[in-house]
Amino acid sequence: MPRLVNHDEYRQIITSAVWKVMYEDGVEAASVRRIADELNISVGKLRHYFITQQGLLGFALDAITERVSARIKQHRLSARSGDAAAIEILGELLPLDHERSVEVSIWLSFLSKARHDKSLDELKHRAWKGERYVCRMAIVATAGWSYEGRNFNEPFHNAEVEKLADELHLFIAGLTIQSGTYPDKFTPQVINIYLRDHTVRLNKELGDYA
Amino acid sequence: MPRLVNHDEYRQIITSAVWKVMYEDGVEAASVRRIADELNISVGKLRHYFITQQGLLGFALDAITERVSARIKQHRLSARSGDAAAIEILGELLPLDHERSVEVSIWLSFLSKARHDKSLDELKHRAWKGERYVCRMAIVATAGWSYEGRNFNEPFHNAEVEKLADELHLFIAGLTIQSGTYPDKFTPQVINIYLRDHTVRLNKELGDYA
Repeated sequence: MPRLVNHDEYRQIITSAVWKVMYEDGVEAASVRRIADELNISVGKLRHYFITQQGLLGFALDAITERVSARIKQHRLSARSGDAAAIEILGELLPLDHERSVEVSIWLSFLSKARHDKSLDELKHRAWKGERYVCRMAIVATAGWSYEGRNFNEPFHNAEVEKLADELHLFIAGLTIQSGTYPDKFTPQVINIYLRDHTVRLNKELGDYA
Repeated sequence: MPRLVNHDEYRQIITSAVWKVMYEDGVEAASVRRIADELNISVGKLRHYFITQQGLLGFALDAITERVSARIKQHRLSARSGDAAAIEILGELLPLDHERSVEVSIWLSFLSKARHDKSLDELKHRAWKGERYVCRMAIVATAGWSYEGRNFNEPFHNAEVEKLADELHLFIAGLTIQSGTYPDKFTPQVINIYLRDHTVRLNKELGDYA
């Protein structure tokens, strides 16, 4: 690692190392020692940035959240709608390329850890809300409704529409764990077929609402 | 631990300890040392039974597979059919009581580990087939077809029906990870509502086939 780097660059370098280890060997493997080894720096130096493995995990997750949020925001700004737009929005959560595969892998490792670690409860529930946000946005896209003035953090006023968001959320969770665990069966092409089929069905069920 | 126990009892005692640790702290925590501590025996003694953590994990998973298979076999023997039977069959894979919560927890931890450990590939794919078996059986149950002479290890002859098994499999995967991760949101009552709704829809789509 070069001696003179600014704080942001340093964070970026550390993030890459954390992500690499988590992707290759899982969250548990990403100890402060292992990351220090990966970066070829002392544990003491790394501890200036992260005291605990918890800190490293939070850091990796914040990076995921930022990246996914930025991509979702782009979709919102483009204001495209229809089935194809909905599929692209949902696809931001799925392993459709290397970047997203790394994200999903870290994501699932985090959920696994969060099942046994109460200190991750708040993060876990924040994660749930983020996913639901994306599902609601995809529903609005596929229905062709305007994004204008909508708060995707809030449930739909119509309980039947919120129920569709609920089912979509469950479907995306299933597709995430299956594609993350069985990448041989769930190629990007297969994932897109599932997304398309579900979106077509969703659209039929949304037909009656406005 | 009593000095004189037969081999089966000993395995039973070890299984309980492995399960307890995996349930409370995750698969990663269930090292040979930790299990030995839990049983208050020496690592050397435990190593007569398990050389590695892999061995412990395989042991815990075999125990799950045996238990789930035995319950599924009972359903098959009872030969009950209809929506209620299908819901009960699928429910064997979900955290509807303490026993199944422990199973699901270990199961998800295993999948998480299997994403980073190629040596678990065969076990991971065997797990997939077992789940698909249960999904096919639930489809036959909800459609009211006879179990007689069916091999649930094989895809349905009708590709459209197999596609419904495929979607059911994905739905169950989603319900498993969500209920395992967010037990506060997915109470047994909520899980059963999801199962009922999905079975009702499935039944409608199965209406045209025989």
